[in-house]
Amino acid sequence: MVLVAPRNPLNIGAAARAMSNFGFSRLRLVNPYDVAFREARSAVRAGHILEGAQQFQTVAEAVADCALVVGTTAAGRRELQHTVRRLEYGGRLIRKRLASEPVALLFGSEKFGLSNEDLAHCHWLLRAPAREEHDSMNLGQAVAVCLYELARSPEAATARPDRKKRAAAAGLEELTRLLLDVLGASGYVHHRVAASTEMKIRRLVRRMDLSAHDAEIWLGMIRQILWKMKG
Amino acid sequence: MVLVAPRNPLNIGAAARAMSNFGFSRLRLVNPYDVAFREARSAVRAGHILEGAQQFQTVAEAVADCALVVGTTAAGRRELQHTVRRLEYGGRLIRKRLASEPVALLFGSEKFGLSNEDLAHCHWLLRAPAREEHDSMNLGQAVAVCLYELARSPEAATARPDRKKRAAAAGLEELTRLLLDVLGASGYVHHRVAASTEMKIRRLVRRMDLSAHDAEIWLGMIRQILWKMKG
Repeated sequence: MVLVAPRNPLNIGAAARAMSNFGFSRLRLVNPYDVAFREARSAVRAGHILEGAQQFQTVAEAVADCALVVGTTAAGRRELQHTVRRLEYGGRLIRKRLASEPVALLFGSEKFGLSNEDLAHCHWLLRAPAREEHDSMNLGQAVAVCLYELARSPEAATARPDRKKRAAAAGLEELTRLLLDVLGASGYVHHRVAASTEMKIRRLVRRMDLSAHDAEIWLGMIRQILWKMKG
Repeated sequence: MVLVAPRNPLNIGAAARAMSNFGFSRLRLVNPYDVAFREARSAVRAGHILEGAQQFQTVAEAVADCALVVGTTAAGRRELQHTVRRLEYGGRLIRKRLASEPVALLFGSEKFGLSNEDLAHCHWLLRAPAREEHDSMNLGQAVAVCLYELARSPEAATARPDRKKRAAAAGLEELTRLLLDVLGASGYVHHRVAASTEMKIRRLVRRMDLSAHDAEIWLGMIRQILWKMKG
């Protein structure tokens, strides 16, 4: 992560924090505004990343050991000669390269972005998919979104998530029985349609998609109601 | 987007800015710290979103018209009864639901996150895939990352990106010929291996993967060198 000429200590801190959040560690700054860097260093939680941050005079020095240099740009900006890739696609390319070699991701200053001289060091450019009409992102947020995309797991999008343990069928059936008892006792169930009502209630209980824990709570509530009604 | 008890005007502004970046418009605040809301309103660029922001006393009122209420939580926090989904997966579910009905996405205060009372209004929880060891994200960055995931296009990750028009084979062959002339004139090509050198150079030029524009620049440079060498 290379920040070129950042001026706002809050943004430097936010960039470091996002790096820590998503597991990136090497921060480099090219010509940071000195006061901003000092303030960021003294103020922010993600201290170990800022402490290890390296300062450089030029972009060339900052990216010297990197096999791929990617610049970031706003959506609306017209780049004449660079290939501009959307974050979803470019992120995938960067992930692949990161597996085998160092990659530099460049962010420009808050006000001007990357200059044409900075861009000349880049192999290609990345842009976040913000709307054309309002494409300029806050620096700290842009860093967070880019690093999220790099840390993102495509598999997690389709994998089944962690779920609470669901209630077993026996518990759901017990709940159904007790609920039918309560409804019978309350006069809700008309005897002429009792069989169809029973089926409706059985389906209703299954649609609740109860966890084992919640099924226990429901059983407790309904037992109590039944006890009160028959008491 | 519902912010519960936000205290920092910069975060309220950053949340509004991310909404504008990614094309979301309805911001609701539950019990914001008054001074913070006033300051955010007067300070920030994404003015139309803050101007339209609605204030509520309770989470219940703020989410009353929403068919799905999703809370956000830090990775490390243990939620006893809610299903917690990773952003990659939960984002997909939210995108689907958003197509047909209003969905509320809740963010808690900077210091405490969502309270247990707030969480009781949620159908399930979302967590950003930050590292367990440093999972607490800055509020503005968390909002940006979540909205990016919702605005993200899975298709864009596999689609071929926009590329500059590549150079046609004829141009590459002309470049190869001229380069061989220059190399011949310079004494680089040993006559005993001329055929194999020619092939090497031909492949080298193709590996440059030149755009039409860059091929023109190379042609111009090499013509000039050749003119100078033969002059």
